[in-house]
Amino acid sequence: MIEAENLALQYARDNAARFLEDLKALCAIPSISSIPAHAGEVHRAAEWVAEALRQAGLEQVRLLPTEGHPVLYGEWLHAGPSQPTILFYGHYDVQPALDLEAWESPPFEPRVRGEDLVGRGASDMKGQTLAEIDAIASWLRGTTSLPLNVKFLVEGEEEIGSRHLRKFIQSHAELLACDAAFNGDAGMVTPELPSITYGLRGGLRVEVTVSGPTHDVHSGTFGGTLHNPAQALIELIAGMHDAHGRVTLPGFYDRVRQLEADERASLALLPMDEKFFLSQSGAPALWGEPEYTPLERTTARPTLEVLSFHAGLAGEGVLNIVPAQAKAALSMRLVPDQEPEASYQSLINYLQTQAPSTVHWEAHRLNNGGRASLLDRHTPLVKALDQALEETWGVHPAYIRIGGGIPVVAQLQEELGIPSILTGFGLPDDHIHGPNEKLHLPTWHKGIEAIIRFLKRASQV
Amino acid sequence: MIEAENLALQYARDNAARFLEDLKALCAIPSISSIPAHAGEVHRAAEWVAEALRQAGLEQVRLLPTEGHPVLYGEWLHAGPSQPTILFYGHYDVQPALDLEAWESPPFEPRVRGEDLVGRGASDMKGQTLAEIDAIASWLRGTTSLPLNVKFLVEGEEEIGSRHLRKFIQSHAELLACDAAFNGDAGMVTPELPSITYGLRGGLRVEVTVSGPTHDVHSGTFGGTLHNPAQALIELIAGMHDAHGRVTLPGFYDRVRQLEADERASLALLPMDEKFFLSQSGAPALWGEPEYTPLERTTARPTLEVLSFHAGLAGEGVLNIVPAQAKAALSMRLVPDQEPEASYQSLINYLQTQAPSTVHWEAHRLNNGGRASLLDRHTPLVKALDQALEETWGVHPAYIRIGGGIPVVAQLQEELGIPSILTGFGLPDDHIHGPNEKLHLPTWHKGIEAIIRFLKRASQV
Repeated sequence: MIEAENLALQYARDNAARFLEDLKALCAIPSISSIPAHAGEVHRAAEWVAEALRQAGLEQVRLLPTEGHPVLYGEWLHAGPSQPTILFYGHYDVQPALDLEAWESPPFEPRVRGEDLVGRGASDMKGQTLAEIDAIASWLRGTTSLPLNVKFLVEGEEEIGSRHLRKFIQSHAELLACDAAFNGDAGMVTPELPSITYGLRGGLRVEVTVSGPTHDVHSGTFGGTLHNPAQALIELIAGMHDAHGRVTLPGFYDRVRQLEADERASLALLPMDEKFFLSQSGAPALWGEPEYTPLERTTARPTLEVLSFHAGLAGEGVLNIVPAQAKAALSMRLVPDQEPEASYQSLINYLQTQAPSTVHWEAHRLNNGGRASLLDRHTPLVKALDQALEETWGVHPAYIRIGGGIPVVAQLQEELGIPSILTGFGLPDDHIHGPNEKLHLPTWHKGIEAIIRFLKRASQV
Repeated sequence: MIEAENLALQYARDNAARFLEDLKALCAIPSISSIPAHAGEVHRAAEWVAEALRQAGLEQVRLLPTEGHPVLYGEWLHAGPSQPTILFYGHYDVQPALDLEAWESPPFEPRVRGEDLVGRGASDMKGQTLAEIDAIASWLRGTTSLPLNVKFLVEGEEEIGSRHLRKFIQSHAELLACDAAFNGDAGMVTPELPSITYGLRGGLRVEVTVSGPTHDVHSGTFGGTLHNPAQALIELIAGMHDAHGRVTLPGFYDRVRQLEADERASLALLPMDEKFFLSQSGAPALWGEPEYTPLERTTARPTLEVLSFHAGLAGEGVLNIVPAQAKAALSMRLVPDQEPEASYQSLINYLQTQAPSTVHWEAHRLNNGGRASLLDRHTPLVKALDQALEETWGVHPAYIRIGGGIPVVAQLQEELGIPSILTGFGLPDDHIHGPNEKLHLPTWHKGIEAIIRFLKRASQV
């Protein structure tokens, strides 16, 4: 079996240049799931990945419809019933590439710059998805078989909250049956420190709209006697945090599970200190609840963020108006044991008690929201991944919690009872969701090797 | 002379339908001065108005260049040196017609609906400008002369702050020499109550930008440990008013001239009470400094308004980002004896002391700003207008202060020492600058007659 693994590893090394060309080809497709006009490109990316799955040697590869973008399925089940079945997860959709001026090269013309591949989706997560497929290809093309059974689920709506995936999972429970999912969307700490992610924040997005006059009115005629809706919404949002960065929504922290001392000690060992957050963001200073470290604030504490705020005219036209309306999108990041519905209600309660009678307001959820998850660190499959990462990097992997949420993790757990093993080869400075997203290629190639090794070790548990 | 006036009035009545067709033709030209791509349309409107001035019987009609859009000039100076010379002011540019969905008919396809003409510029101020030209035409075509000397100055940059007009006035002082300006851009209170405006607020617009991380960052990865620039700007703006609607910028009220008791009594007689402001705006309640009436707040008290606020993505794409930057445009409305520069400094002082070290900020002026003006209510020419309005409407005109500013008024005063007689036939519910701008046509026709009568009475002072 060691010999087979070596053949697979050799195949990956021999094909490294082709793997990169494949990744560039996939990143060149602007599969932006949030923009309806891009639906054709999203579908093209799905077809492209389906072909890659077939080329890797997977079987039964097909696009399965949802109410939104299709889910890709593929399988290789010839390792026998005594071997575990791992469901590899990926997504072929990407975030929009806004602020084009900030991109140093066009977002959908991926380019190698130094050790990085720069392009939208390179890190999140076309690179990660192809790392999984390339590892399978290395086994099936470098030898003729896999040491365990695998299935693939590659969705096209991760960047819009996996909004049709739960229903898909419900209606394809038998097809997706497996022992665990492998999800490469969780990233790592530094190029030298591979990571296993055991905690995810949940979240909920809410849009709040404040309106006053029925139409935009002249700021000279009405300024000073109407409560400007932009100002009213500004005042409401300003009141949602206290001076120490704590959220003031009534009851917001009621069910928050406190960090235990040993977990705080473990998180404190990670190289994600103040300097790390400062250098990764370029912000002039940090901010937030003073009694928690930056890493704790971003992974184990709930937060409320202004994602967007819009009122009045943007751009070149000059208008002396009091805008009739102002809109903000707010994001709550939730931790165990907060419930999205209760968090939404605490926002509504705040607005009900704090909104002035001088304006109208309304709020609605922008997504369904999801709970946070904390995974068991002590299962055999986690141990297999731990060994594979250590063998590849030569260091013990870090165990981390991350601040984002991955809806599919909660959905697989809740609908099928399947745990997700979370790792990945993206780095904190990959600028995912922002301009100049990149993927560190040496790390990515190591990642392919680590998955090759994981497949063998997972077959031995 | 009465007979001549009657001939002029008769000409106006006989040509009412043509005047309306002319107005519709002018309003169909989208002469939006703030949008560079519309420069051709702005120029077309200038040519159109020049031809209307010639058709009215004015002489020396020509487009005079500025660094921006041209100024139109015309004159009729045959009344003799013993007669006064009045400089009629107008502007041929308009505001943008944003929020197209809110317009019930296309903004540049003017339509008569009931007693109104609906279209961008109908009230502000193509209708007012043509009322002046139509009154001159009624004298020159209905008789063969005018009872006094007239000049016309029609600019194309009023909606962008008359930004090149001061220089034009300076360099054309002799051409523009006159006894007083007549400016129809100031509106009236109700269709039954004509008005003479003697007070204008000044103003200044400022853009404030707050930035934090050097790029948009993932709200899951960084949320809770960075000061979100949108939130930081929200907090700064929220602190610019106290709970009673008073501006908190240090020193902001230092030079504000207090209202005197007799002026407060006079303003209190106007039919612009709480109900008026509520019905004109559709807002659920009024707001502002409780010790002043709504009319006082909007005309004789300085204010600070949020014209626009933008951060993060607008529209359909969903991004889980902390935006790298947030921008707000603020408008200060100033009263005697505030200085724009000092008001700007009070904002800067506020930002210097209040902005947190967790973000960067910068501010810059969006326009030059202008002082407020208060005009002498007791000159013979004001009396002539008073009589003409009373004769036309059958009631004493109201003397009002308005909340907006008219840069040309300050510029003519400061550069040439010329007072402006301010009136107009636009109504508070004309939705100027907003969707569905309209002009009340019966009031407009009365306005043309009032200007015809004013020309005679002004020749007798």
